[in-house]
This record gives sequence, C-alpha cells and structure tokens, in this order.
Amino acid sequence: MRTYVQRVGSWLCLLAGLMWSVAANADDGYRLWLKYDLIKDAGLRTAYASQAGFIQVTGRSGILASAAGELQAGLQGLLGKPVPVVSSGSKTGGIVLTVSQAVALPNAEGYQLTQQGGNVVISAKTEAGVLYGAFALLRHLQTRQPLRNLPQSSSPKVRYRMLNHWDNVNGTIERGYAGGTLWKWYELPETVDPRYRDYARANASLGINGSVLNNVNASARFMTAEYLQKVAAIANVFRAYGIRVYLSVYFPAPKVVGGLKTSDPLDPQVKAWWTDKVAEIYKLIPDFGGFLVKANSEGEPGPQDYGRTHADGANMLAEALGDHDGIVLWRSFVYKADPKGDRFKAAYEEFKPLDGQFHKKVIVQVKNGPIDFQVREPFSPLFGAMDRTPLAMEFQITQEYLGFATHSVFEAPLFKECLDSDTWQKGKGSTVAKVIDGSVGNYTLSAMAGVANTGSDRNWTGNPMGQANWYAFGRLTWDHTLASETLAREWVNMTLTTEPKAAQAITDMMLRSREIYVDYTNPLGLHHIMGYGIHYGPEPWLDRAPRPDWRHTYYHRADSIGVGFDRTASGSNALSQYKPEVQAQWNNPESCPLPYLLWFHHVAWTKKLPTGRTLWDEICTRYYTGADAVGWMQQQWAQAKPAIDPELYADVAGRLATQHREAIWWRDACVLYFQTFAKRPIPAPFRQPDRTLEDVKRLVDIYQMR
Amino acid sequence: MRTYVQRVGSWLCLLAGLMWSVAANADDGYRLWLKYDLIKDAGLRTAYASQAGFIQVTGRSGILASAAGELQAGLQGLLGKPVPVVSSGSKTGGIVLTVSQAVALPNAEGYQLTQQGGNVVISAKTEAGVLYGAFALLRHLQTRQPLRNLPQSSSPKVRYRMLNHWDNVNGTIERGYAGGTLWKWYELPETVDPRYRDYARANASLGINGSVLNNVNASARFMTAEYLQKVAAIANVFRAYGIRVYLSVYFPAPKVVGGLKTSDPLDPQVKAWWTDKVAEIYKLIPDFGGFLVKANSEGEPGPQDYGRTHADGANMLAEALGDHDGIVLWRSFVYKADPKGDRFKAAYEEFKPLDGQFHKKVIVQVKNGPIDFQVREPFSPLFGAMDRTPLAMEFQITQEYLGFATHSVFEAPLFKECLDSDTWQKGKGSTVAKVIDGSVGNYTLSAMAGVANTGSDRNWTGNPMGQANWYAFGRLTWDHTLASETLAREWVNMTLTTEPKAAQAITDMMLRSREIYVDYTNPLGLHHIMGYGIHYGPEPWLDRAPRPDWRHTYYHRADSIGVGFDRTASGSNALSQYKPEVQAQWNNPESCPLPYLLWFHHVAWTKKLPTGRTLWDEICTRYYTGADAVGWMQQQWAQAKPAIDPELYADVAGRLATQHREAIWWRDACVLYFQTFAKRPIPAPFRQPDRTLEDVKRLVDIYQMR
Repeated sequence: MRTYVQRVGSWLCLLAGLMWSVAANADDGYRLWLKYDLIKDAGLRTAYASQAGFIQVTGRSGILASAAGELQAGLQGLLGKPVPVVSSGSKTGGIVLTVSQAVALPNAEGYQLTQQGGNVVISAKTEAGVLYGAFALLRHLQTRQPLRNLPQSSSPKVRYRMLNHWDNVNGTIERGYAGGTLWKWYELPETVDPRYRDYARANASLGINGSVLNNVNASARFMTAEYLQKVAAIANVFRAYGIRVYLSVYFPAPKVVGGLKTSDPLDPQVKAWWTDKVAEIYKLIPDFGGFLVKANSEGEPGPQDYGRTHADGANMLAEALGDHDGIVLWRSFVYKADPKGDRFKAAYEEFKPLDGQFHKKVIVQVKNGPIDFQVREPFSPLFGAMDRTPLAMEFQITQEYLGFATHSVFEAPLFKECLDSDTWQKGKGSTVAKVIDGSVGNYTLSAMAGVANTGSDRNWTGNPMGQANWYAFGRLTWDHTLASETLAREWVNMTLTTEPKAAQAITDMMLRSREIYVDYTNPLGLHHIMGYGIHYGPEPWLDRAPRPDWRHTYYHRADSIGVGFDRTASGSNALSQYKPEVQAQWNNPESCPLPYLLWFHHVAWTKKLPTGRTLWDEICTRYYTGADAVGWMQQQWAQAKPAIDPELYADVAGRLATQHREAIWWRDACVLYFQTFAKRPIPAPFRQPDRTLEDVKRLVDIYQMR
Repeated sequence: MRTYVQRVGSWLCLLAGLMWSVAANADDGYRLWLKYDLIKDAGLRTAYASQAGFIQVTGRSGILASAAGELQAGLQGLLGKPVPVVSSGSKTGGIVLTVSQAVALPNAEGYQLTQQGGNVVISAKTEAGVLYGAFALLRHLQTRQPLRNLPQSSSPKVRYRMLNHWDNVNGTIERGYAGGTLWKWYELPETVDPRYRDYARANASLGINGSVLNNVNASARFMTAEYLQKVAAIANVFRAYGIRVYLSVYFPAPKVVGGLKTSDPLDPQVKAWWTDKVAEIYKLIPDFGGFLVKANSEGEPGPQDYGRTHADGANMLAEALGDHDGIVLWRSFVYKADPKGDRFKAAYEEFKPLDGQFHKKVIVQVKNGPIDFQVREPFSPLFGAMDRTPLAMEFQITQEYLGFATHSVFEAPLFKECLDSDTWQKGKGSTVAKVIDGSVGNYTLSAMAGVANTGSDRNWTGNPMGQANWYAFGRLTWDHTLASETLAREWVNMTLTTEPKAAQAITDMMLRSREIYVDYTNPLGLHHIMGYGIHYGPEPWLDRAPRPDWRHTYYHRADSIGVGFDRTASGSNALSQYKPEVQAQWNNPESCPLPYLLWFHHVAWTKKLPTGRTLWDEICTRYYTGADAVGWMQQQWAQAKPAIDPELYADVAGRLATQHREAIWWRDACVLYFQTFAKRPIPAPFRQPDRTLEDVKRLVDIYQMR
C-alpha cells in the first residue's frame, strides 16, 4: 500500500507522463534478519547453489520440518531457485540433515556443519540442534562467507536462553515501546496469530529456547484453566522451533485463583494446590519451561508476607514441579525504601544469607547491575557472592533507560562489559559470564534472560535499530564470547546491507552508540537521573517522590563540593559486597576507572582527573561531545543511504534527528542543573546553553503532563 | 515471512520432494478495502481498460496529485497494466480530472462522474471533490459495476465527517482493541510513519474529512509548542487527502500549560491565552479543524468548576477561534452520580436549558443514545429537543460493548436504526439523520463523528470484520441514506471477494450479526449489564461500584415481579424528554416495540408478549437462539471459504469460534442470574445450562483479575 504512495511524491514525474511502476515492496522490517533476499553476486550464488541442490531429511518431527522448511525458503530466496526436499537418496551437491547421538558435541543442542561425501551435512544429537545448524548455515550464506569456511561446530554455553516479556493481560507492555503485546489473549486459543510462528523462527535463529510470556508483575489469570488454554495454543506453535513457554507467577495465586485462605509457601494446602496446578499445566503443555517470580519487590506480594524467605517461596514452587522438566527463576530485584540505606546493597543483603538454601531446580535471576538497568552499572555484587546458587543473568533489551524506541543504542557493548567483568568469585577469571554459564560453580543449570523489546509494531521493535539488540542478546545467550563487532556486522549484513562501505559505516555507528548515549545522559558514572514519570528525558533535580530511592538527588548527591555517591567505607560501603580484588579496582578515587567514578565516589568539582581536566570540565566535555557525536551518527547513517532500503533509511534518519535534538536537551538540562552546585562556567570551547534551567524543566514537565 | 511458513505445514508434500513455491503474499489485511487486485474477468478488464488509457490532470496541488496517484495505482492493480498520467491532450479513452466552479453540484466537496467526449470525466468544484470522485470511480470498478452505470453525481450530506481517536499520549487507546496508537508521539515530528498516509487514503476513500487525534480525556500536552509540532507533522500528511486534524482539549490547559491562576472561561487572561494559542496553532497548521471538548464529565474538569456553563466554556473557545475556519465540538456526555436519578435524563437536563446560547461555531456532540454506546439504545432525546443548536452525532465504531475485536458485529444496522429514528423535532420526518445533517434546523454546520476502531495492528482493526464498521461509518457520514446491505456488499466485494455466492453468504451474516449479538447479550431492551472492569463479558449481578450508575442492578432492576427500568411517568419519566409522538410509541408497555421494551418498562416475568411467550420465556428464547445463531454465522463464513484468502479466512473463523463460546457464556450468565428472580424453568426446547451461576461468575472474575 505504501509503495506507490511514496512514488506519487514527485509530481513533476507524473506530469511528464511517466509510467507508473509497481516497485518491489518497501522493506517494512517485518522479516528482521531473516531476509533471504537474492544474492546479487552471480558467481557467489553459483558457488552456493552447487552445494544446495536438495535438502535431505529423515524423520518427520515438527522441529525437523521447521529446519527443512527454513532452509528451503531461505535458499530459494538467496539463490533464486527452488530447492527440493527429499527423504533419502545418495546424491551429492545437497544439504543433509541428520540427528545422531554419535555426533561429537558436548551438548544436546549443539550442531556440526561439515562437508562429507560431496554434501553439506548438518548434524546434531537432537532435532533442535539441527534447527540451530540450519540457521547457522543460512547465516553463513546471508553474511556471504565462503563455503570453504565450513566445517563449523558450535554448542550453547548457557542452557536456558530466554526472553522475558513484561506484557500485561490488557494488551500493554510495561516498558514496551513498539506497540501493544504480541499475545492476543482475548482471541486465544481459537485464533492463533501467524506472527507467533515468525516470532519463534526469529528466536530460534539466534538460539533462544524459552519465552516468559507475561509480565513479572504478574496477573493471576495465567494460573486459571481459561488462560492456560490460551498459553497452550502459543506453546503449540513454539514447539516446532524448540521454544518452551514459561509463566510469571503471581505469588498469591492459591488465594486469588484457588480460593484458599492463605498463600503461605509452607502451608500444606498451598503446596498441594501448586502441585495440582503444575500437573494441570504439564497436561496441557508437556514441554512447559517453568516459573519466573518477582516476589516482595516493589509492592508485589511474596513469601515474606507470611514470615517466610525467598528460598521458602522458590523451593515450594520447585518441589511442586516435581519430576517435570521445569525450573524456577526467582528474581533478586528487591529493595526497601530506606532513606538512610543504599539501594545498591539491597539484593545482596536479602539474598546472600540464603545462599545454599535453594532447591536444585531454582535459579536466582539477577539484573546485570545493582540498581536497575541504568545506562552503565557495575556488575551486581551477587554475581561474585553466591557460591552455592546458580544465577541467571537478567539484561534489559527494551530501552527503558536508553531512549525508548527513538534513540539508537546498540547494547552489545553494555552486555559484554558486564559479562566480561571479573567477579573473582573463585579467583581470577571468574567472569560474570562464567558465573552464569555454570562453569565457575560447575552447575548444569544456567540461564540468561533478556527483557524483550518486541511489540506489535510491524517491524517488531519500533526503532529498526532495536532489532540489533534482540539479535545481539540472543546470539550472546548462545555464545557470550562473541564480540560486539561480530554481532553488529552480522546483523547489519543480514538486515540492512552487505555493501562493505555502508556496512562498515553502520557498524562503526553502532559500536560507538552506547558510549555516546552514556556521555550525553550519564557520564562518568552518574546514574538514575532520568525523568520520573518517563524514564526518558533528564530530571536530575527530582527530589520529591513517594520513596527516597526514587528521588534522583539520592543518587547523584550533588552539593557545592562535588557530585557522586560515596559507596566506599566512608560512605554506604556497598563496595564491601564485592571480592577484595574488585574493591581494589574501584575503592580508590584516584585509580577508579572513570566510567564508574561517580558510582562509588563523591568527587570534588575541582578534582583533576587523569584526562587532565577537572571533574566539572570533564562532565561538561562529556555532555557536549556526546550530544555532538549524535551528529556524527547521523553522518554515518547518511553515508550508508545508497545501500539501504529507502523507507527503512528514512525511518532511522528521522529517529536520529530526534535523538540529536533530545541529546542536546539532556546536555542542557544536566549541565545547567549541576552548574547550580558547581558554580563554574562551561569550559571552552563549549558555550553556555542558550536556554535556561527553567526552560529545560518545562520541557521535561511537558513529557510528564497528564 | 509468514507465507512460506504456512506452506511448510504439509510435511508429506515436502517428503515427496515437491518444489518450494513462492506464493503471493498472504493477505494481512493492511490494504483494507483499497485492494486493487487484478480483475480476473478478462472481458470486464478490457471493457474497463478501454476507458482507462490515461489519466489527465491539470493543476498540481497535493490533493489532485493524490487523486491521480490513487487512480494510477488502482487502475494498474485492477487492470494489470500501467496507466500514464498526462497533463494535457485531446485524446479519448482516458480519465480526465477537472476542478471547475461551473460543475452543477450543491456542495464544494461533491463530485460528478460523467462520460464526455470519449473520456470519463471526474469533475468537482474543489480538488477534494475530485479526490472523492476518483475513489468513487475506483469503487465502481472494485465492485465490478458496468461503466454504463455512469454518470453519477454525489455530494456529502454532512459537512464535518470525522473520526474521534481516544488515543492517549502513552501509546494506549481507551477502548482500543487493535494494538497501540497509530500516532507515534515520541518519534514525531522527525519520523513520519508512512502509515499516516495510508490512514488518510482509507478515510478519504470514504469521504471522511477530519480526525481528532487525541482522547477526549485529553492530555494537556497537545496545547504545548512541543506537541503542536508533532501534530503539524501529521497534518502535513493528511492535507493531501483533504483530512483536517482536530484536537481534544484539556480544559485547564491555561493553568497547566499557560501557568495562569485560573482556567475560568470568562477570565480575560484565559480568553487571551486561548486566542494566542489558536494563533499559534493556525500558524503551524493553517487548515486546523478545531477543538473537541469533554468537560465536567466523568471527573474531567470544565467550566462548571468556575460556576460557568457548558455554553460559557464552548463559546469562549469559539471566540478564540475568531476568523479561523475552525469549530468547537462540545460533548453532551455528562451525568452526575445520583442513586435516585436516572442517568438517561442527565444530558438533556444539562443541555436543554442551554439551547440557543451557543456561539455559531459550536456544535454540541451527542452520543447516539442516552446512556453509553450500548448494544441498542433509543436515540438520545437531545436530538429532538435542541431546536436552536446544531448537533453532531457521536457513534462508537470501536466495539467497547460489542465484544471488543473478537465478536463480529456489523454496526451499520445500529447506526441506521438511530439515524432513521424520527425525533418529531419539527414534525414528522425530523429523523435523527436530518437533525444532524442540518436540514431540520437549516444549519450549515453539521457533523458526524465515530470513535475509531483503528490501532497499530497490521490489519488496523484487530478483527478483519471490524474494517467493515469503519467503512460503513465513513460512507454514512457522506450519505446517511445508504442501506446497510449496500454498505456490507460494497465492503465485502472490495475487501474479501467478488464471488457472488460467497459475497452473499458473508453479507447475510453481517446483516444479521448485530441482532444476534443483541439477543445473546441484551435482548428486549436490557442494557448496561456487561462486566464492570471489562465491558466485554456479562455481569448483570453487579451491585457494587463507586457510583450508583455504574451498578448494573441500577439498570435492569430485576426483582421477583419482573425486570426493566420504568422510565414512564410512573417511573423516572425520562420518556417525557421526547416529543409526544415519540412518547406515544414507547410509553405503553402493550405497544412498545420489543427491542425497546425493557428500556422503558418494568415488565412482569409472566407478562404475555406479542410473540405469544411470557417475558421470561421470551428472554430465554432470545439468549438461546442468539447463542445458537453464532453457529449459523460460522456456517455462513465456512461457505465462503473457497473464495477467501486462507489467512484471512482462518483469522475470522478463529474469532467466530471464540464468539460462539462466549455467546454461550453470556447466555448462561444471564439466564442463570435472572432465573434467581424469575424462579422459573428454562422453557423447552432449551435446556438448563450445565454449569451454575457460580461457575459463570468465576469466569467473569478471571477476566477481571489483576
């Protein structure tokens, strides 16, 4: 529909009597990175085609059918010719899918791509492994790699690779910026949106194998027979792509749904209710994945309402799961409103004493940082502290604090920064990645979850560039050693362009984008100074809120001397929650890396930093150069224009223009506000903002008006 | 993406080695009724093509470009060959677009389609008229009518033909069931979604010429420079399709946005603020349409907060509009919480005394019925009562009380029932339609508004059948004399199929669907017995709510004697708000038409009705036959299967299955509940429901659980 309308634009062409031409559909982003457009290089096409004469499969399960179907569709698109699927034969020049226990792989879900007997063979111990191998082969072609680069072998480092959907039953998504929920609860189970399958395909192509469908602020509805039928209809679609469904639990469900007098996890009736509920669920959904729980957190009920611990609650659910192949993911995101405390320390204080008390089916799911998905956080101290408990990583893919769907921020560097941090839990090299993949603790349970950025918008993520964050997160759940640059380049090649110069320009833009965002919003370790009602614009001046730890002066502690939160022994001593080696990195303001400086230290405005500038001058420099750098991003994007679909180009170009305008808003708001404490001029060559602090406050107020 | 996945389904075909075939895209509903798919009948194509050799236009404004572009794209699709656009010439066999004051039309927006000098000529006094004519010509071809049926001439009966969007700034839509908002406020003004243009095209194709972009529960943001820039970006797109934008007003904007001490409409500073604001708006949006206001209603602020009247508020805004070509639509939807009163009477009581006091730029916008968009309402008494005030019709297209996006309910019969009702305002024949089109009162201001059912879902309306309601509403704003059957048939032909048997089956289903819905939810004039938290399921038992008129026992008044609301002189006497001739139709329970019976009378369960059944037996009969009739709808739909796109077919089939299940839920809930008063058995041949009242209450509770 939109295609020809676009073409109408040039009125002069119409007057000149030019013919109307029906162009190929504009790229609306729906296909994500699974585009399979024709490879333009005829030589490369021929080379690939010589190994793609047929697809041979033996067996007929749903997952193998998915693998064969995906290959068939992908090859037809990339090579421009149909590829038959055959059940047997002894021909050469094709692709053979085999499931065999004899394959030398460490892992049931891993795959091998080899060249054997004139064929490309995709082999794995399970059908899911073959599916992952099929997507790997397609990726190989989509990124234009030579076939001689086979063989490849790969196995996932993490067992439970999940998206968490904070989707509500009313169709909204908490922290969703791409339309409404994908899950059409009112229409289910009778109407099954074809989109569910494409969602599953996209996830499987990355290695994701689980989806928590509902918000952690959970509705009790999901524990009713009525809603479980709906959930089962989705699970039936996902199954053919190796995706298991999970549900967030509303802890008082036994009372609310079951009509019991209590939801006390130690009450025998409550236990029995959950055991029966689990049986009911597995009857409907034999491959149900398990439960995710937010309890006694931000007003959500939980076991503490009955004087029980998080472990009591989690273990009760784990026991209810019994012999079923399901797990409990229990979130550690808790904090009490204490004006004298430090929210940074809350999760550790509540969970460290429970270490070792959790049932073997429980994983404690920890947000990457100690506060709440800020633009940069030090890794959560729990990752170094829970010696006897498997921990899951919880990243946020949706850009709650990263400019919603407007700003382009590639998150792989953020994920990697955390994953590569060394906790020293069991000595040097105990990186966060190795803690959560189970290798430090020698656990078989390991999990990585990302709070999804998907929604009902046609292109799934609102900002087309947001697709890259879904992509990068998914690929990292499979292999956390992948470099940010690799992920960016793969995604760009598969999604936007394979033209080398354009791909390079975009990749460069993506790789710098997060640091640029940090600079114009929260440089040097500033955090939690965003708009109160809208985690989007700046509001560092916020000093009234229902809870002390929702006030922003609580975090930045600016005064006439300096700025930053002293978390050393002279302050909240949150640093003591880390291993001594980690403390040593951060506890000295002289040697603390600048990105973390104001996370741990209250630093004088006049303090000279290693950059040669005073703190005040450095803060200003970051805000100004950060905002300027968005202009550089716009230039990078413009360079790629000839190689990009015009509609997609215009979409991102528009968002970058907004981002530039808003980066200057952040800059002005923060330098003007902090200047009221620092009482120093904006350092040359930068200029005092044209507008006043009142001006930028008014703008913030607009975005928080009813 | 979904196309080939669908095809993978048949695993046996794959094993048989069948080739993969890239099918045409499945129909995702995005194109609405503007499909322009190739006409299969080659003879008809040739006949049409003989008159479509070129498109000739003189002039180059945006709207003419839209008309030419639409014709070009439409003809290319329908005829399968390109059609050039030329600026001049003397050839024959083409389509000529002309704007001329000499055209004999009563109306600036009307059009003529004639055959002159071997060409089809689309002529109008304005470019907008030509655009409407272009769409009419395309509709002519889409519905396969012979060219000899030209000439045609048509002019809109109503001047302001509008959609009202109850869309919130946070992206949600109040009473929206098709995803999030279409308006991407965070991305605007820099990113302009190509969808805005397709929205405008769809509306223009129906004759709609205005859109109120924001919820009547309005955000003050829209009166800020920041948001007006965003609104202007949308207006810039709409302009080329003759659509003007309007804004809902948050009455306290002078305080909230302007920083004034008051928003009193008689305060000189307030007046000045609005005058300045209007000037600011028109500078950005020269064709701005005006304001829609919900004031002193359901907690919204308004002029009464300052002791002023609705007229004071409306007139102040109208004066602020000054000489600008804009209007004020002031809503009459008001009611006070009075347990002894009758909400039915509230709008009349507040607005009738103001008749004649409104500024000439003000239209009072009245909901079709006196309560709130129920499945059936008598027309609002205001339509017969406001002799000296232009009134706008407000219909609800979105199915708030009609089963959300799950149930298929064609609303044209509901709209028509109201429009064709005789108010007797100025004697016989003063139908609601003639009141609102200005012919009864001889007003030049006339308006019809529909609360939109659009959202960000790919197919715009969630339920594909919901598109027909948008279509029917839009066409009725242009010509309220169109029959429901005409509208259904046009839409089916343009959207689903031109195959006669299938089209007939679907048309029949649509035409009966609303009466079926009434029967299984609110037969015989029952009203307002839906779920409290969710206007969806049944909850006739609701007798607790924050306001008396939000309780459902308030409306049905069931007791051991009978059921229904006595609104005659012996009861609330709401009937007295109608003209005597109307009262005479309804005030006698013996002669009151059954569809309105319980709207006006408390009737004994044992009362014998003209159907030969007692009230109780009749109620039961309606609930049971209504629910059964959804099974008939499913059969009708199944008959059409061979002629319908498979994906679209499956979507509606799934929804109908849900509708059937839920119709039985409504039936069981209502007969079981009313049985507790009537204390009578379910009459043969119907059977007592298998489940209990407690069972159905539990189900209702589930859908209202947090």
